[in-house]
Parts: sequence; C-alpha cells; structure tokens
Amino acid sequence: MGHLAVIGFGPGSVEWCTPEVVEILGSATDWVGYDTYLDMAQTLVAPAPGAVLHRTDNRQEGERARAALDLAAGGRSVAVVSSGDPGVFAMAAAVLEEIEREPDPARWGEVEITVHPGISAAQAAAARAGAPLGHDFCVLSLSDNLKPWDLVERRLDAVAAADLVIALYNPRSRHRPDQIGKAVAIIGRHRGGATPVVLGRDVGRPDEQVRITTLAQLAEPDGWAEVDMRTVIIVGSSQTRTIDGPGGRTLAYTSRHHPGSAPG
Amino acid sequence: MGHLAVIGFGPGSVEWCTPEVVEILGSATDWVGYDTYLDMAQTLVAPAPGAVLHRTDNRQEGERARAALDLAAGGRSVAVVSSGDPGVFAMAAAVLEEIEREPDPARWGEVEITVHPGISAAQAAAARAGAPLGHDFCVLSLSDNLKPWDLVERRLDAVAAADLVIALYNPRSRHRPDQIGKAVAIIGRHRGGATPVVLGRDVGRPDEQVRITTLAQLAEPDGWAEVDMRTVIIVGSSQTRTIDGPGGRTLAYTSRHHPGSAPG
Repeated sequence: MGHLAVIGFGPGSVEWCTPEVVEILGSATDWVGYDTYLDMAQTLVAPAPGAVLHRTDNRQEGERARAALDLAAGGRSVAVVSSGDPGVFAMAAAVLEEIEREPDPARWGEVEITVHPGISAAQAAAARAGAPLGHDFCVLSLSDNLKPWDLVERRLDAVAAADLVIALYNPRSRHRPDQIGKAVAIIGRHRGGATPVVLGRDVGRPDEQVRITTLAQLAEPDGWAEVDMRTVIIVGSSQTRTIDGPGGRTLAYTSRHHPGSAPG
Repeated sequence: MGHLAVIGFGPGSVEWCTPEVVEILGSATDWVGYDTYLDMAQTLVAPAPGAVLHRTDNRQEGERARAALDLAAGGRSVAVVSSGDPGVFAMAAAVLEEIEREPDPARWGEVEITVHPGISAAQAAAARAGAPLGHDFCVLSLSDNLKPWDLVERRLDAVAAADLVIALYNPRSRHRPDQIGKAVAIIGRHRGGATPVVLGRDVGRPDEQVRITTLAQLAEPDGWAEVDMRTVIIVGSSQTRTIDGPGGRTLAYTSRHHPGSAPG
C-alpha cells in the first residue's frame, strides 16, 4: 500500500524543519512539488538513493496532487512538498480537494494519507519581530485567484473592525500590484496610523528581511514598494505596541491584556 | 551578557520539536516555565549538566518573565519554556510586556532576547484532521481573564459573519464552564448545523484525541462535555467539508476555492 505524506519544511532553514519532516523526506521514494520548494527542501535533507523528484510549475496544484496520489496508489512512498505549513494556503487542501472531486472511489482507495505540520511564514516573521501574534489574530490571503475580491474586502473590514491582529499572505504579485493598497485603506478605517506593522520577507532564508513600520507608512504612495509574494505582512491590533528592547532593538508585541471594548 | 530565549517545544512530541529548540534547551543554564511544561520539555530534551529548572505556577506569567529576565541580566543563558508556539497566547508577549512595564531601562538593558517558533496546537489538530485551516482563518482565545467577555462575543460574531475558519483556544475551564455554549450559539447565527468541527485534545501527546463532529452536535446540551482547556476547537467556514478518505477515514478540509459572496 502506498503512502502520501503532505509535508511542510517550514520557512526554509534546517533549524526550523521538524524531525518528522526530515525523516519523511529522507525516506520517500518520490518528492512532488513546485520546483523552487524542491530546491529548498534539498538544502535541508538529501533525498534517499534512487528517489525521484517530480518538479512542477507553481500553478498546477490540482494536477500535482493527482500525480502524487497516482504514484502512491502504485505503491510508492510519496512526499508532497510545501514550504511553511502544508495546511495553511498550501498543498494539504489541494490534495483533499482532488480526492473529493475524483468520481472513482477505488482510484486512490488504498493510499494512506498523512499531513505533517511545519512552522509557517507568519510564525517565523512574528518570532523575529517579537510577539505580534501574542493575542487574537487572523491569517488571510489577499489573492483573488480562487475567491472574489469583494469577499477579501469584506473579510478585511470585519477583522479590522473586530480589532484582530491581521497576518496577510500573498499580499502582492505582478498581476495584482495595487490590491495591497486597497487592503491597507480598508484596515485604516479602523486602525490608527501609528499601528505597528511587521514586514517579513524570506524569513529563515539567506536573504531574510524583517522590518517594523507603521500603518501610516505602509499607506504612503511608495509604502508597499518592497512588498511582494514572498512577504508576509502582520498588521497590529489596538493592543500591539513597539518597545525599545535591549540594545536599542525595536520589538513589536501584542499585549495579552485588552482594556475594554475595542475601537470599532 | 546574558541571553533569554523564549522557546516553544510544539505540541509535545519529539518529532514536532524544532532542532533550534532542541539546541537551546540542551545548552541553557536555566529553564523557566510552568511546571507541567518543564516536565514535558524534559521528555524531549535532557537539560545540560548543572542546569537549573525554575518551576512556576500556571498563572504567574508576569513574575515568571521578570525572574527569567533577572537571571539573564546576571549572565545566565535562560530558556523560557512554552508548549506550542511561544508567540501564540504564550510567554513571548508576557516577557515583552514586562520589559515595557519596567521603569529602569538599565535593569535588563544588556540581555539578548530571542523568540523561537514552534508548531502550535491548532496546526497539530488541523494536520491530524486533514486541512481545515486550508484557507482564511482566525485564532481566538475564549478566556476572558485578560479581556472583557463582550469583546470575545463581538469578535466571534465578526469572524463568523466574515466566513473565516475559527480556531478556539482555552475554550472551557472549571471557572468558565458555560462560555463555550455562548460561543457556539454566536457562531451558529452565521453557520449551518452541518458545519464541520474538529476537536483536538492533547494532540501529539500519548493521550491524543481528535474527533470530527458538526456545529449542531457541538451545540447540543452535552455537546461540549468533553471540551476542556487542553482542547483546541476548529470550526469550519462555509467552504469546509468532510470527505471519506482512503480506508473510510473521515477527513475535514477547507477548500481554497470560494464560489462567491459568503453567507453573512
């Protein structure tokens, strides 16, 4: 019986990859994933002798999932490779979507499927900045590839009004250069300009950049020029503050205490 | 110069503890943390020879943070120990709160402070159940120890209306036996009774329990009898579905696709 393990190797550094994922990657007969992620995973774990690496384009998530399931149905031990946590905007949902969609229940009926968590990009950025996710928070994707933009706007408005810390994935791409500006404007209806904002790019990788700024600075005409698909943005709540930490280092954190009703 | 490392060892199994945290725990001169968490951490990593374990009560978070900072200011290499991710409802914010509160900037001015992420309880429960956090989600604490209950209710109403997946921490304690019922009723204003719900208790520990149920079942008079402080509840969105996975196993996942405007 084949096995399909959906794994997340974390942000990209070996110190943040779980032993479970190291073990699975090191023993799988097949790795399936986006080209860039397979390259990253190889810097963390050497594939087993004879293991086959199946490299795909970033957009073919459904086809990638089906190919992986077919391999496992043939008796292989397959690792579907994501960065971060495979359960957060990544391949675990894509695999289960294909199982639901498949009309023949026998096709993959003998495959053992497991999901293996990893440190997400938002957790990594938060740790470097201090503790901005220290109280109630949400994690939203700004991409409207698979959902209507008006839903994105409605969710942003709701979570900003409810005073949650907001972690934004996929904030900006070449095809969506301006939606980040709209998102910042919606949040700005409910939060002051001094609200701390953490920008984390490639955290845990050689080119890591973490910057603590403010909502007002992010809203300026060139405020999000540096933001791209590899950036996670964390917008604070009314209880997120920056402090001068030891050595003059600025740290951002969200207090566990809330004084009363939040600004609406 | 002393060092204070705020670490999270993950849900409790060695396969989910990052190598970074293993290294820090194995070399620290002092471990500071809630009694139960120090016991768990010792099943994962042996303290260095001569290391001192400072055991505290669960509620003394501020005192614990100050004691750890004082130790580090004295030149020690201190690990502040949380389970899960220390940046999510845990000690990282407590440490930074104390630094902000301290009137003497010189007291801990030379201490190097670092935060080290871990796999959170919500991620662990999600991985076991399938991929319920596969799209936009939020993470809320139901505890009203540090925030007013009306804010909890307002946040629940907002995120339920915005059709986010909702992960609930601290859902029920001896002192708050009934708030989970109120929370379920608020979510039920916006979600159907068939909405999948994941209950994860002690995931990654020897007594792990993961159950997939529905919002209607959770709302029944004894629907949350098994829920306690060690349970994480994940309530699906309108796009969360259960499927019959291979071997007849039920899996829950949230589709990455959203058909249009969400139910309000």
